[in-house]
Amino acid sequence: MEPPINHSADNTETAATSLHSPSPISFSKDTIVAVSTPPGTGGIAVVRISGPEALDITGSVWRGKNFKGCDSHTAHLGRIVNEAGETLDEVVATLFLAPNSYTGDDVIELACHGSRWIQREIVNLLIRSGARAAGPGEFSQRAFINGRIDLAQAEGIIDLIASSSRSAHRLAMLQANGQFSKRLEGLRQQLIDFASLLELELDFSEEDVEFADRQHLALLADKVINEVDRLARSYSVGKAFKEGIPVVIAGQPNAGKSTLLNQLLEEDKAIVSDVPGTTRDIIEDTREIDGTLFRFIDTAGLRETDDSVERIGIERATDRIRRSAIILWLVDTTSDIETQLEYIREKQKNLDSSILQHIIFNKIDACKNADFLSRGIRLLSDNSNSSDSSNNSNPILQLSASTGEGIGTLLSALTSDALSMQTEGGDIMVTNARHYESLLRGGESLRRARQLLADHLSADFIAQDVREALHHLGEITGTITTSTLLNTIFSRFCIGK
Amino acid sequence: MEPPINHSADNTETAATSLHSPSPISFSKDTIVAVSTPPGTGGIAVVRISGPEALDITGSVWRGKNFKGCDSHTAHLGRIVNEAGETLDEVVATLFLAPNSYTGDDVIELACHGSRWIQREIVNLLIRSGARAAGPGEFSQRAFINGRIDLAQAEGIIDLIASSSRSAHRLAMLQANGQFSKRLEGLRQQLIDFASLLELELDFSEEDVEFADRQHLALLADKVINEVDRLARSYSVGKAFKEGIPVVIAGQPNAGKSTLLNQLLEEDKAIVSDVPGTTRDIIEDTREIDGTLFRFIDTAGLRETDDSVERIGIERATDRIRRSAIILWLVDTTSDIETQLEYIREKQKNLDSSILQHIIFNKIDACKNADFLSRGIRLLSDNSNSSDSSNNSNPILQLSASTGEGIGTLLSALTSDALSMQTEGGDIMVTNARHYESLLRGGESLRRARQLLADHLSADFIAQDVREALHHLGEITGTITTSTLLNTIFSRFCIGK
Repeated sequence: MEPPINHSADNTETAATSLHSPSPISFSKDTIVAVSTPPGTGGIAVVRISGPEALDITGSVWRGKNFKGCDSHTAHLGRIVNEAGETLDEVVATLFLAPNSYTGDDVIELACHGSRWIQREIVNLLIRSGARAAGPGEFSQRAFINGRIDLAQAEGIIDLIASSSRSAHRLAMLQANGQFSKRLEGLRQQLIDFASLLELELDFSEEDVEFADRQHLALLADKVINEVDRLARSYSVGKAFKEGIPVVIAGQPNAGKSTLLNQLLEEDKAIVSDVPGTTRDIIEDTREIDGTLFRFIDTAGLRETDDSVERIGIERATDRIRRSAIILWLVDTTSDIETQLEYIREKQKNLDSSILQHIIFNKIDACKNADFLSRGIRLLSDNSNSSDSSNNSNPILQLSASTGEGIGTLLSALTSDALSMQTEGGDIMVTNARHYESLLRGGESLRRARQLLADHLSADFIAQDVREALHHLGEITGTITTSTLLNTIFSRFCIGK
Repeated sequence: MEPPINHSADNTETAATSLHSPSPISFSKDTIVAVSTPPGTGGIAVVRISGPEALDITGSVWRGKNFKGCDSHTAHLGRIVNEAGETLDEVVATLFLAPNSYTGDDVIELACHGSRWIQREIVNLLIRSGARAAGPGEFSQRAFINGRIDLAQAEGIIDLIASSSRSAHRLAMLQANGQFSKRLEGLRQQLIDFASLLELELDFSEEDVEFADRQHLALLADKVINEVDRLARSYSVGKAFKEGIPVVIAGQPNAGKSTLLNQLLEEDKAIVSDVPGTTRDIIEDTREIDGTLFRFIDTAGLRETDDSVERIGIERATDRIRRSAIILWLVDTTSDIETQLEYIREKQKNLDSSILQHIIFNKIDACKNADFLSRGIRLLSDNSNSSDSSNNSNPILQLSASTGEGIGTLLSALTSDALSMQTEGGDIMVTNARHYESLLRGGESLRRARQLLADHLSADFIAQDVREALHHLGEITGTITTSTLLNTIFSRFCIGK
């Protein structure tokens, strides 16, 4: 099978325009084999073999049409026969001839019966016939070496295989099919133009001529810095979409946090009891709502306590609140609402303004005093009008975590939050910690260059920082690579991909 | 992908020459879809769609080369796009056009990235686009309906997918590729010739003419009966090869049975203790030795006991001994050998002569008294010479289950046993209980016919029994079918096959 991935022409272009040539990493070009389908028993399984000898090695155990006369992208019925002449299986062999294959080398995919025994025997036979067992991600590594995909695309493929929600899948797909790389290459191209102008100035530096219009250069630098920063900022959102948007359920003890968690997860994850302080550990799990993965986190009841174990729980809860994307503040409407709101306002101080927040009036089924409730709502809305935080302008949610009443409205609110996060994150988001770090470092180098430019320093100082920035951005797609980096990335793949 | 199975022309022939036309079972001819690779996450997964609308339905969500212009057995890179225009995945679609596909209908196999999410979304999209989720084995059922495979072949495919040793695989392969069906068809053909001669005689019965040479008919019947019986007899061996040859480890308490089991299984399966009677349950597990699966069974120590739980264990052990293929009689050489041999001889009475047996002198590392040991060996050989059982003519095995000394010789003996069983079972063995029953019933009908023939009864009586025999043999390959039978068989498949 050929790569289910776009092969943009970017790679060649990148190599041609790069200021740095890739590190000279040597790769063995032997022929590798592995089962590419999920491990286990099934109707069919696919054994993939790739390399210069793929046709010869497979041909030596194949009884069917001679591969030498076959076109690429054709499927053939035949038998795999061991050294003793015994038929291991009747299989369909599909040929993908170099360079039009996933790896860029000759590839044969053998679709066999999905018995573990047959899968193992066919792989072992091919190994005895001269192939080598492929390591994790080695097919994709070959694709990278042969310029079929870049590093960011390879990492996108890992994410694509691991993706478990529509949002995560969408982000991984943008990366796997090269959209993300294209955006980065655009930035690199602008920097290369920038650097060229600077280098030109350097060549004529003795003549004290300023070729580059510094005003224009400053604008160019600002534009790139802006985009690099935006991509780096998108990481927190991108990561949230990939791993599940962290939603912290907070509130005073016995506000019904664990009950709400169970309701949201549609299962009994947290132990629920009437004893305040029951939840000490942080309990969390994910659920996909309308295509987006949310990670719901039940925190230890936030109260002052003498219990040292409970206090650690509270510290952790406070930390998780700070690092969450969405906070659901739970208020027990059968208890003193005013005190609880006061408490929440206290906790809201110093929170990052990017965190979305909802105040939720819980236990509305048990709240007998309607006046009490409406006074609480009035209190809250008065307060939010006077408050400088715009987050509290959300309509007050009222629900009963125990009966499930009003949960639908909360789910809609969460979906709408996810949408606004997506809008904020932009069309292309960074989801990979490695990319994030490279963007941060690239941004730093650019900011230094920008400062030097503002300070009217000589072009050679500026050029050095620009080259550094190019290096950092180049690491993302693999224009700049080291073998350590490659091994780290490809070992994250499953075997057979 | 096309069927990794021979498509012999037998099916058409069968239909043409059958005395009974297949039951009129109606089948829907809609288009079915399922994931055919093992469940889970992997590098790639294959979604299979089959039916008259496979090209249209897949085409409606496909962005790539128009399937209408493509040849059969060609692979194409493209994208699967949902109703919102979002790319679900880049896939390789391989076309198998009717009738040259596994099912005999148009088949498209979509090789996608092996994420669970992607697999599920693609299947769901195809279902929304007009396909139906395939039930277990439904692709193979289509292949049967379209005459691509017969029932025995379909059952062979199930066994092939489940096979976990070389022997089991070989038997399943013979069945899946139609060798078994061919043999049966040969028998059926002989019976049809037989029946034709009889029917001819019937047509002219009023003229009291005997067309069929009764002597010749008797020979023909004997030949078929002989082969049907041989096949039926091969079931116990075939079943043993498929599920693991049952090897019972027997002997008096504390002879070291559990230690030997652990040694044979290369793990600590049974609890070993010096207290006689430790093993009460029957402990068993399988191990592949030199391509053959053995099922080792440790039985409760065979001794008279007052303990009621232990007594049940002993009864079960006695039962397992009777139903085993091989018995390893363990003798503790540090204890009274003579009494133990006496005991074993007692137990050997009334055992089926087909059971292979070995007497094993255990604990040879701890047996200090060499005279004692050699006297035991002499005793045993004297005895086996005088015995009518030829099974005991095996050389006496000496080993130490605890140190592993001599285990290699035991393994060789077991492999040699398997080989002799295979020779006895013949080239084609019955492994399926359904086939076994049909053969038994067919044999009975034939024996009745043979008796009538010997008794010189009228041809119409004989013809009725022959028709019955044909019916039973026809059930095996599916010449004769009922929808209940079909559903039972195909529901044993995994989904996607």
